[in-house]
Amino acid sequence: MSERLSAEHERLGKITTEIIARYARTLGEARVCSEATPAELEKMFDEPLPLEGAEADQLFGRFEREIAPHAMHIPSPRYYGLFNPTPLPIAVWADALSSAINQNGAVWRNSPSASVIESRVLRWLCEIVGYGAGSFGTLTSGGSEANLIALKCARDRAARFVRDRGLRAASLPANRAVNNAPHASATAGNMIVYASEQCHYSFVKSMDILGLGRDNLRKVATDARFHIRTDALRREIERDLEAGNLPVCVAGAAGTTSSGVIDPLDELAGIAGEYKLWFHVDGAYGAPLAMSGKYRDRLRGIERADSVTIDPHKWMFVPFAAGALLVREGGGVLRDAFDITPEYLSEERGGEDVPFDFFRYGQLGTRRFNALKIWFALKTLGVRGYAEIIERQIELTEYFAARVAALEEFECAGEVETAVCCLRFVPPLMRDAGGSELDALQRELQQRIERSGEAWFSTTVLDGRRALRVNVNSFLTERRHIDDLLELLRRESGEALKARKAL
Amino acid sequence: MSERLSAEHERLGKITTEIIARYARTLGEARVCSEATPAELEKMFDEPLPLEGAEADQLFGRFEREIAPHAMHIPSPRYYGLFNPTPLPIAVWADALSSAINQNGAVWRNSPSASVIESRVLRWLCEIVGYGAGSFGTLTSGGSEANLIALKCARDRAARFVRDRGLRAASLPANRAVNNAPHASATAGNMIVYASEQCHYSFVKSMDILGLGRDNLRKVATDARFHIRTDALRREIERDLEAGNLPVCVAGAAGTTSSGVIDPLDELAGIAGEYKLWFHVDGAYGAPLAMSGKYRDRLRGIERADSVTIDPHKWMFVPFAAGALLVREGGGVLRDAFDITPEYLSEERGGEDVPFDFFRYGQLGTRRFNALKIWFALKTLGVRGYAEIIERQIELTEYFAARVAALEEFECAGEVETAVCCLRFVPPLMRDAGGSELDALQRELQQRIERSGEAWFSTTVLDGRRALRVNVNSFLTERRHIDDLLELLRRESGEALKARKAL
Repeated sequence: MSERLSAEHERLGKITTEIIARYARTLGEARVCSEATPAELEKMFDEPLPLEGAEADQLFGRFEREIAPHAMHIPSPRYYGLFNPTPLPIAVWADALSSAINQNGAVWRNSPSASVIESRVLRWLCEIVGYGAGSFGTLTSGGSEANLIALKCARDRAARFVRDRGLRAASLPANRAVNNAPHASATAGNMIVYASEQCHYSFVKSMDILGLGRDNLRKVATDARFHIRTDALRREIERDLEAGNLPVCVAGAAGTTSSGVIDPLDELAGIAGEYKLWFHVDGAYGAPLAMSGKYRDRLRGIERADSVTIDPHKWMFVPFAAGALLVREGGGVLRDAFDITPEYLSEERGGEDVPFDFFRYGQLGTRRFNALKIWFALKTLGVRGYAEIIERQIELTEYFAARVAALEEFECAGEVETAVCCLRFVPPLMRDAGGSELDALQRELQQRIERSGEAWFSTTVLDGRRALRVNVNSFLTERRHIDDLLELLRRESGEALKARKAL
Repeated sequence: MSERLSAEHERLGKITTEIIARYARTLGEARVCSEATPAELEKMFDEPLPLEGAEADQLFGRFEREIAPHAMHIPSPRYYGLFNPTPLPIAVWADALSSAINQNGAVWRNSPSASVIESRVLRWLCEIVGYGAGSFGTLTSGGSEANLIALKCARDRAARFVRDRGLRAASLPANRAVNNAPHASATAGNMIVYASEQCHYSFVKSMDILGLGRDNLRKVATDARFHIRTDALRREIERDLEAGNLPVCVAGAAGTTSSGVIDPLDELAGIAGEYKLWFHVDGAYGAPLAMSGKYRDRLRGIERADSVTIDPHKWMFVPFAAGALLVREGGGVLRDAFDITPEYLSEERGGEDVPFDFFRYGQLGTRRFNALKIWFALKTLGVRGYAEIIERQIELTEYFAARVAALEEFECAGEVETAVCCLRFVPPLMRDAGGSELDALQRELQQRIERSGEAWFSTTVLDGRRALRVNVNSFLTERRHIDDLLELLRRESGEALKARKAL
């Protein structure tokens, strides 16, 4: 029986390896994205629930003919999309090992080595962001779950009764920073979280999920380069205190989704300390910058955060899904927020209260062995290997931005702090055009480049106006790809203008 | 460049295939679990953050020598643990394909084929549980996330303002079923969810996360075979209405974690309808029973649920993580609860409002292409292939239970409704022993068998007393393995008694 299983793995593994190797070989040349419409794709896969089984070989064939070609080629060096990396080959295959041994890292007894390796990987991630020995954390399905966990810790620290009695209990405690102030009494108001207007949408989602309400996330104004304005933050906090609300958390971004910039984390840490707020840093994308000696200083203050989101499946190039939440004060904070031990798990712990029964530290029950790919990747590249790639990607982005700035028809929006550059196509003839016409022009240019298949990037909105967003994600991207992208922008923007004139 | 990447995948894929094939070959004979202590494992992996890179070959070696041997051998035919399956080889390798193309299924434009395949897989899962054409859903990281999403839908349907204003807004609307009753006015009370005392701990966690409070989950009493008692449920609902609380949801279990039994779903659907409650079925484990013509009737009423949790990574044998929440009324319900579209995603939709921009339908942002392994597995086995395995596993469990019942020293606890059998070792000499002594005896027997390495199962608590919990999870398990397990129980229970007498 084991022999049969083994032979099947051998056969399927060989086919899979060949498919992946062939896929990788085409990446340099293939279209970055499919031209198929949703309707065409729906038709392609519109099949009834299979009653009888089919041959595996046939399915692998369909993968190569129908699924892979109509994927977005995220692993391409010419994919400049949303923080989605080319996965490191070593991490792809480590992921296959995880699938094969199928560990469930909820309780250490049910996944001994996996739980210990998760614990070790978390120690390394804590060290990367500058946390001390008392820190800990939990791997998550990504940044959304990590941010949710952080806000839950903040919510529960501000009002311990919420966990058991819920948010509808009559009054909240006073803000701990203003015990002697006129607004120091218990409050019937709302719990408030602060983040910049550039914060990730998972903060809105998390407020909603946690019962705090989307409206109670204060989206604080940003400066001209899209960093949170700390004067505006202070004003918002004071206003909430006056109104009888309970400020509980301020979140800074280390790599905003739209433009990749980093909030003034050290200053935010100071304000959080002053008002006794939980300080969270969403470094889902940007936190690995701490591995670069050259750029580490941009994150100054991250080590003062109560919690940090870091997604190894972004700037650490492991395949999805691998996110993490790190907590400066350690696992006790997470256990206070999440520990519920049912009977059928109490014994599995083997009576030992180990610090790596991870179901007690977060939202999930079943927990895939995602730590393995991070362990392999960190071991293979080392911090220095990561620093090299990250520094090269920032340099390529700066090179791109400098070339863009030199073009008469384009302007950069904001600055390059990580590997994101936002820009606009503003041809001299259209300098006086209305905002909506210019917005439409950006969209048109993005669509033209998408249709060309030669590169892919998204658009975003900054200061209420559409912009192109180019993000160097892939460790495969080289200067020649950037040169090609500039040429593509030049060509397609020219075509877009010509088409407009012809109208 | 692509050539180099391709060659690297070829080399690493070959090594990975060999390791997995070797691992599979040992499964029949190897110890099911490691003997290492947490301290030994911590020492094994206690290494500083790697600064320089290491050779991949060396890491693969460590995987084979240190990681795999100290894993719990969940893929073993002699692993009888907690709903964790031997993964189907085809699904393991499909998972590797997902890792390699690294799709992020948040927005269809960024993952065209992946989003459409997720949509197709959800259609099939809906059909399996008996939902009609208007139903839809979302894949999740597992049952905990799926149950959270279900309770959020229930919460928001009962009080629409919560999403934006939060739970602290002054009063809740009256229960819709009692508009003309004395307690029909708006209420300052709590929102209440009902589930049996056997419900999964993720319900407690979800109540907490959602701001509803752990105390507002009513754990309803069960009958002697651990099904929810509907008379007790009615009493609890009436009591809450009298107290000014707002009942919002009742959850039935299709395969409880401790004993695998199925609540009277049809009856629960009736009560939910009567009180206008959201009716959720947690079929994380048990819902795939619907694929068996022989046993489908045990789930009668599941098709009347507003939402169903089903985890393909349990009884559908795909590797972690692959859960799902299905919603009878379709995606609109999920969008009402979760849709937040940031600027940088609005354009990626390519202007088309397609029903498979999955970030709008659930908690997560980044979403791995977990649909692929389910698609491969369902295509390869077909419903009939699944039915055969599921039916065989139930028969093996019934065979085991019958053999246990015939032993003088053992008794079954509850009944076999799925592939779980709970039992107790109650030797005639100890019939009059106290509960705690018998509890200790169960623990001791479980520990002895764990140490033997010949099989693994957990214990649980039923009716306040410790029991052994044996779950046929693996499609590799055959009758001879069950016979071995019975022999092992006989031998180790005898040893345990002997050791006690010697004291």
